[in-house]
Amino acid sequence: MSTRLGIIVISGTLDKVLPAFMLATTAASMGWEVGMFFSFYGLTVLHKDLNKNIPVSPIGNLQVLNENKTINELSKLTTEQFSKIMEENKMPSLSDLIEMAKSLNIKLYPCNTAMKLFGFNKEDLVEGVEKPVGAATFLNFINEAEKPIVLNF
Amino acid sequence: MSTRLGIIVISGTLDKVLPAFMLATTAASMGWEVGMFFSFYGLTVLHKDLNKNIPVSPIGNLQVLNENKTINELSKLTTEQFSKIMEENKMPSLSDLIEMAKSLNIKLYPCNTAMKLFGFNKEDLVEGVEKPVGAATFLNFINEAEKPIVLNF
Amino acid sequence: MSTRLGIIVISGTLDKVLPAFMLATTAASMGWEVGMFFSFYGLTVLHKDLNKNIPVSPIGNLQVLNENKTINELSKLTTEQFSKIMEENKMPSLSDLIEMAKSLNIKLYPCNTAMKLFGFNKEDLVEGVEKPVGAATFLNFINEAEKPIVLNF
Repeated sequence: MSTRLGIIVISGTLDKVLPAFMLATTAASMGWEVGMFFSFYGLTVLHKDLNKNIPVSPIGNLQVLNENKTINELSKLTTEQFSKIMEENKMPSLSDLIEMAKSLNIKLYPCNTAMKLFGFNKEDLVEGVEKPVGAATFLNFINEAEKPIVLNF
Repeated sequence: MSTRLGIIVISGTLDKVLPAFMLATTAASMGWEVGMFFSFYGLTVLHKDLNKNIPVSPIGNLQVLNENKTINELSKLTTEQFSKIMEENKMPSLSDLIEMAKSLNIKLYPCNTAMKLFGFNKEDLVEGVEKPVGAATFLNFINEAEKPIVLNF
Repeated sequence: MSTRLGIIVISGTLDKVLPAFMLATTAASMGWEVGMFFSFYGLTVLHKDLNKNIPVSPIGNLQVLNENKTINELSKLTTEQFSKIMEENKMPSLSDLIEMAKSLNIKLYPCNTAMKLFGFNKEDLVEGVEKPVGAATFLNFINEAEKPIVLNF
């Protein structure tokens, strides 16, 4: 129990969510205990239908910087661009990463407040996640370790 | 002094700022020592007038993903949507959370560099915040703990 | 080796990248060991040509909140506004901060997966960075410390 990694996901875009899962699964492969807490926009990641449509943020994408399109057009462009690169490089998709996380025994905690705000039920969530908890439960989980590390995406 | 939580707020949107305060107040309620450092866009949170207009970012909001509007129209839509959900669920507002933080003895540190860049004076800030400090002071505050945890929003 | 600070940069906008470097160089000046890991949009920061065009995100900029322009127009406005303020206050630029980081012996690690996804070669990167590594190497670097602190921008 020396190092425990807590990862908080509050963003709803793949440019944040994929790195969160990549770090989580890497750490778990190294033998660290890892828990992830999903709140605000990040809760969408655990919704079994909505998580199929998570976009990539165009903010920070230099390649679309000069295109005078609406934010949603740029978002679509960026997401398509990104999907293509991910496939060509045989990178794991979000659903691959969720499965990998579960098989590595990473705890996936939905935030109970966000569940209420979004009107999500337990049945809406992907299988194998923990039951919804509050932030206090997650902070306690982290703080039990000698070396707690927390990252927020 | 075993665990000390440092929260850095550099974002100027409620989807980041509210989770920052919710985690801070939860941790303080559990008896942790908590300090928050406000810099860049995040300094706006401590400005007594400007902090009434902090929007919710539409980036990551799936419900507005297909609407071909300008970013500011989407921002307004998202902010209205969000305010309604927060009120219906009787969630604390930003100003409630700032008061709660102060009453839980959470230290609120304005970044002195950001104060200078934005031309803010001490009188512009909400009451009860610490005097502006640099990043070194904040890092020292955190590092005095046996188990320092730092989160960045 | 008591405190070691790891900074993960996955954002490609200056409102995240500059605070990341400011905290990193402040911590290093205080004698902390610091490593930075650049992945996803954040890898652009280490590209010697592309890093000259890193914008400031307009998301969170209250001053452009009511202007009905495209996201790219707002991004340009915000970036110009910001550059002017930075120059007037004689703040270090991104390239100054990269040089400062190297002179303070901060390790700058490019993510090898992001190198592959973006098709960047070692020659495309600014001089003096480490050779590209995976997330596991970075997590190990951090975890060797008694008090590991990790921040994600």
